Amino acid sequence: MTVGVAFEVGSTDDAARTGTLTLPRGTIRTPAFMPVGTAATVKAMTMETVKSTGADVILGNTYHLMLRPGAERVAALGGLHVFSGWKGPILTDSGGFQVMSLAQLRKLDVDGVTFQSHIDGSTHRLTPERSLEIQALLDSDIRTQLDECVALPADRAVMEKAMRLSLAWAERSKVAFAGTSGRALFGIVQGGDDAELRLESAAGLTAIGFDGYAIGGLAVGEPQATMLAMLDLTVPALPADRPRYLMGVGTPDDILQSVKRGIDMFDCVMPTRAGRHGVAYTRYGKLNLKNARHADDPRPLDETAAWAPARDYSRAYLHHLVKADEILASMLLSWNNVAYYQNLMGQVRRAISMGCYDAFVAEQQAAWAIGDIAELS
Amino acid sequence: MTVGVAFEVGSTDDAARTGTLTLPRGTIRTPAFMPVGTAATVKAMTMETVKSTGADVILGNTYHLMLRPGAERVAALGGLHVFSGWKGPILTDSGGFQVMSLAQLRKLDVDGVTFQSHIDGSTHRLTPERSLEIQALLDSDIRTQLDECVALPADRAVMEKAMRLSLAWAERSKVAFAGTSGRALFGIVQGGDDAELRLESAAGLTAIGFDGYAIGGLAVGEPQATMLAMLDLTVPALPADRPRYLMGVGTPDDILQSVKRGIDMFDCVMPTRAGRHGVAYTRYGKLNLKNARHADDPRPLDETAAWAPARDYSRAYLHHLVKADEILASMLLSWNNVAYYQNLMGQVRRAISMGCYDAFVAEQQAAWAIGDIAELS
Repeated sequence: MTVGVAFEVGSTDDAARTGTLTLPRGTIRTPAFMPVGTAATVKAMTMETVKSTGADVILGNTYHLMLRPGAERVAALGGLHVFSGWKGPILTDSGGFQVMSLAQLRKLDVDGVTFQSHIDGSTHRLTPERSLEIQALLDSDIRTQLDECVALPADRAVMEKAMRLSLAWAERSKVAFAGTSGRALFGIVQGGDDAELRLESAAGLTAIGFDGYAIGGLAVGEPQATMLAMLDLTVPALPADRPRYLMGVGTPDDILQSVKRGIDMFDCVMPTRAGRHGVAYTRYGKLNLKNARHADDPRPLDETAAWAPARDYSRAYLHHLVKADEILASMLLSWNNVAYYQNLMGQVRRAISMGCYDAFVAEQQAAWAIGDIAELS
Repeated sequence: MTVGVAFEVGSTDDAARTGTLTLPRGTIRTPAFMPVGTAATVKAMTMETVKSTGADVILGNTYHLMLRPGAERVAALGGLHVFSGWKGPILTDSGGFQVMSLAQLRKLDVDGVTFQSHIDGSTHRLTPERSLEIQALLDSDIRTQLDECVALPADRAVMEKAMRLSLAWAERSKVAFAGTSGRALFGIVQGGDDAELRLESAAGLTAIGFDGYAIGGLAVGEPQATMLAMLDLTVPALPADRPRYLMGVGTPDDILQSVKRGIDMFDCVMPTRAGRHGVAYTRYGKLNLKNARHADDPRPLDETAAWAPARDYSRAYLHHLVKADEILASMLLSWNNVAYYQNLMGQVRRAISMGCYDAFVAEQQAAWAIGDIAELS
């Protein structure tokens, strides 16, 4: 592993495992959920609040940050940590995924991708080397290779070409990263929903050698069963002594199922995006606070929760804030949802260390199936 | 005064004075600035953060709350304090001002006003009695009479008619409030920019007798000099042993000039509204964070400030958040601005108690004239 970076597996429970990924800026307890700090802010939350939920690491988006405020500017201001106020580790993606999903007039070639900013139409170029240069300017703690991610379903030829290109870029990324210490570099497995391609990608990346292995190109339109089938075959093909990161996933159930298959790290915009749309995660499932049934309900989201937004505010008040389109609705529900996710990860780690992970998953699924506490009569 | 309510004047410095307005839910240090909690939330802030800025009291809008979530609903949920989570005193306006500025198809008669909600077009009616009934349902600590407020400039006949109607409603409000304890009722001086009308209003209200006297119908389009001239003649006509509240005012300079004339209480949406529009108050004046000159500036808004948003975030970061339209921009700048106002009020109270109020005002005005710290070279 890169000097200054260490990963240790703690407990295991079948394929599920706990661990610690240690970097100079802090230790990440795995399985870990990384709140998404798209543009140097986890939307509608202060970094103090993000930290208070138990998050060890957040994610920053290379695509967004390179366009605004700009990587060179962030570097001149002392890096993403000084800029944003987040003191722990930060993982940055490579920019590739957002180029495909957000940018205009993108043109891919074997050397990289040229695209126009969705903000102002200006032209930019990302290559494996430039992506890592940007991530170095941001001074993120965990960096990722540029890859090509295809939406599913896709033709095998398309998936194969993208996987091969990603593998070639992985090699160039490894070279570009060489000499860096105290920071980690993750390769990204691609291959769509094709077993052979996934295995070829995993083997190719393992041969190059990375500090950790991300699994990309899943949760992009395929059924959960397809995603889990891909994990079933990909995870065993990756080195056991390296962290495994499932990119952009997902629902609480996706996370529990993926941890069961040996995934150590996750990121997803769901908790914050849902929070901005009036949706709250609770131990009994997802609630839409817009629903009129909450209008006169004096009860909190979850009286057993340890975090303020779930415990100290009535459903009636949250309903009112959502209906009135108040910023405080986004603040409280984003906070609740990130806290819910972090609390879930803490329970995941405890269950694994106690060797009762399957029972924990069954208990969670049964609770989610309830949907909500009983309506007031 | 009403049983359970007490006002004591502390220090005086010419007409400026400190004091304490004590109510069962807490003591308000005057001169006081009340952040506006329109719809049971001070926009983009948690109540914990509002409290942390030093605010003793917040304002709630009867018009907004009667329409959404509804006064009877708030009462069933335990009142506005339980609903919103604000534990200290709350002042509610009467609804009259917003009926005039926001509602549709309003029709005024001697008994009250009928109007359509700006939210859903539903028809509602406010009378002096219904306004106080709503304020009792909300269970606010300081309640205000229904009045008619006219925008300036206006014809004398219009101002006279509105003042006389407000005075008649003041009498009915006093009757409707009778028997309430532990809550205060404020009358509202009207009369536009006409000296005779203002004096007639003040004398009429004083004869009825209120726990405090609000001065309404100012900061509604007239020059600051007109407003101050009205205060010069109105304040001496009000009982010295009762708090005086200048409604909807204002800029920091408006506040300092009005305190000099004996005003004890203020409310204004400026700090929070400015915060949502990228504007920050600092000791050197008002800054527009959208301005490109902040883009590369690593310095905080004000390194001498005691509150986090002014001290712990760079101008470059705040600029970025504003440009990217991030909710955190509204959160941090609203917080900064309310903290700025509360800090200013603390300095006002200290300056009065030290007998150096004029020197303090001169010092503040000189600082504001600077505009900002020098640009980075």
